[in-house]
Amino acid sequence: MSNKLTIDWDDFLTNYWQKKPVILRDAFSNFIDPISPEELAGLAMEEEIESRIVTNKNGIWDANYGPFIDYSHLGEENWSLLVQAVDHWHKQAATLVEPFKCIPQWQFEDLMISYATQGAGVGPHIDNYDVFIIQGKGCRRWQVGDRNPNYKQFSAHKALLHVEDYLPIIDEEITAGDILYIPIGFPHNGVSIGESLSYSVGFRTQTSQELLSGFADYVIDNLPNGIFYQDPDLKLPSDPYRIQPYELEKLKGQMIDLIKNPALFNDWFGKHITMPMHELNIIPVDPAYDLDEFEEILQSGAELYRVPSIRIVKIDDTAYINGNKIPLPMETIDLLCESEVLYYEQLQDEQTLNVMLEFVNLGYWYFDEE
Amino acid sequence: MSNKLTIDWDDFLTNYWQKKPVILRDAFSNFIDPISPEELAGLAMEEEIESRIVTNKNGIWDANYGPFIDYSHLGEENWSLLVQAVDHWHKQAATLVEPFKCIPQWQFEDLMISYATQGAGVGPHIDNYDVFIIQGKGCRRWQVGDRNPNYKQFSAHKALLHVEDYLPIIDEEITAGDILYIPIGFPHNGVSIGESLSYSVGFRTQTSQELLSGFADYVIDNLPNGIFYQDPDLKLPSDPYRIQPYELEKLKGQMIDLIKNPALFNDWFGKHITMPMHELNIIPVDPAYDLDEFEEILQSGAELYRVPSIRIVKIDDTAYINGNKIPLPMETIDLLCESEVLYYEQLQDEQTLNVMLEFVNLGYWYFDEE
Ligand SMILES: O=C(O)CCC(=O)C(=O)O
Ligand SMILES: O=C(O)CCC(=O)C(=O)O
Ligand SMILES: [Co+2]
Ligand SMILES: [Co+2]
Repeated sequence: MSNKLTIDWDDFLTNYWQKKPVILRDAFSNFIDPISPEELAGLAMEEEIESRIVTNKNGIWDANYGPFIDYSHLGEENWSLLVQAVDHWHKQAATLVEPFKCIPQWQFEDLMISYATQGAGVGPHIDNYDVFIIQGKGCRRWQVGDRNPNYKQFSAHKALLHVEDYLPIIDEEITAGDILYIPIGFPHNGVSIGESLSYSVGFRTQTSQELLSGFADYVIDNLPNGIFYQDPDLKLPSDPYRIQPYELEKLKGQMIDLIKNPALFNDWFGKHITMPMHELNIIPVDPAYDLDEFEEILQSGAELYRVPSIRIVKIDDTAYINGNKIPLPMETIDLLCESEVLYYEQLQDEQTLNVMLEFVNLGYWYFDEE
Repeated sequence: MSNKLTIDWDDFLTNYWQKKPVILRDAFSNFIDPISPEELAGLAMEEEIESRIVTNKNGIWDANYGPFIDYSHLGEENWSLLVQAVDHWHKQAATLVEPFKCIPQWQFEDLMISYATQGAGVGPHIDNYDVFIIQGKGCRRWQVGDRNPNYKQFSAHKALLHVEDYLPIIDEEITAGDILYIPIGFPHNGVSIGESLSYSVGFRTQTSQELLSGFADYVIDNLPNGIFYQDPDLKLPSDPYRIQPYELEKLKGQMIDLIKNPALFNDWFGKHITMPMHELNIIPVDPAYDLDEFEEILQSGAELYRVPSIRIVKIDDTAYINGNKIPLPMETIDLLCESEVLYYEQLQDEQTLNVMLEFVNLGYWYFDEE
């Protein structure tokens, strides 16, 4: 009973992706909410799950972080509950991200779900990610403005960064099965009309700053021997206090060479980009299985399930999962990526069994309990 | 009564600089030690001054860091006292680095002075810097080996990294006024014959790792707005788990663009490379002078002295001192670099006075007390 997305991806990518916002009407026909408000409220009671309640009562914005014990004081209007990375914790909700798996997976962040009462929303704001907002039950009015680096942003509350008034280029109500796509940087504001649920499938990329600083840390840890600037062709400079242009170029070249080193860069990026952006539902096996035990369980017919939304990427002839290199040939990696369920016959050779034993003990795959 | 260096710089740079070690005999004719062992021992009693005593008694290496209170237990042989950055603290000793000021100043580290008794030395080792070792009073036997990345290094003591046996390509005794030049990476060992003093003028460069990590920190602090990876030309990939080669190139390009940005790079490098490598003799003015006071003192004829070995560099049309930008025109900066003593007539215009007031209050220049 998964929802089916109908979208002309070529048209969408050509005309909208990271270019402009759009409403895709009825993209999920006969949309069925994969989660109920009560289930969402239940998830927000868990310590490991990131959640927020935002209220706007009498024009005053307030925001609180979960976990939450009780919702009874919140009344009927002007509050909403937002839960991050629901795809990590709720199997049926996670099916909503499936149709978006055609987009480069290294850019996928999570499925955020919000339940809103009449008049509620998080206020006008700008995000650092691209988002597909799928409307579930109920209806919301969305106003989206154009991209503009000069918008002033301000804290409506210490946990709510809002944006000043903007002229909407989209101002419409959306209902179950409609999608609003908003690229990074476009201001937007959604206000619930009655009770509603909406599902934000988010894609986040890396900033130059994060890239440089993450890579620098990696290089420090992984190239212990210093590569020193050397200039055996030095001529006496006319002004020894002046750093010469060619010296600056040489210094920059040294840094750029590190980045251009594919072994260094790829290994770093693979590990870096597969680190979880939100807590995963990972439970290491304790005590760890040994190889015999592991093989026996598999032979008895138990199947291995991959932890929902654990990050995997392939780069060149290798692959990474959750910050680790996967030391397996590409054909096995392809299998691990494609199949969310694995069984013994697929994993029989010794190398695969040993690697999978490690990943199962780490909790990246687990045996189905049924 | 400064010592005079005679050296054919063109020949030296062409044949030896960062290429191979050499002994320059009698480079300082009639060399006069600018400091006595007693004065050196006195400096090593100061908290702010880095010093070490290394002993090798009965084949056992030991090393201790200063400050030192007493030397009387050390005996007559097999110990030496090494004091770092003496150019920061002892005017006459500092004159020894003057003749080396033709070498790019951004690479200069410090003047290290060692006093050694009969048989003493720090043992065979490899350094991460280029050094001119000027022999003062007494005599040392130096054995220098060839460069080789495969030498094994080991801790002869937790503070002494030694290198395994090597075949000497230089094995000679040097006496007062001789210079031994050793480029980075060549193993060397000096053993004192009788009592001796030696003066190490060191040049240190930046490693790729330091460069990248320092610049990354700067970028994080100075480019608060994230520059996000964007790919509006995205086509659906055949394998969404695979990071495509062009995506990796784009990611690297983003990082490289930061490095190639001259405003960012130059400002960072100027600040970074002028940070002190060893504590400076800086005493901020307390309470700070105000402009009137400052101008009056200058007008009364007092002269300003620059703190010895405070780091200054010029990059393009600006300059940096001790981690700060100098907001003055280049002709004033040239003056500040060339003259170690400044007087009122040179500093009269308002901008210069204001900037110098700030630097004097920070302790970068000080009034001569005489
Ligand atoms: O669901 C909401 O109220 C806010 C959604 C939103 O702004 C987003 O996903 O970027
Ligand atoms: O003075 C000494 O004993 C050691 C000098 C030395 O090895 C150096 O300056 O690199
Ligand atoms: Co948003
Ligand atoms: Co040395």
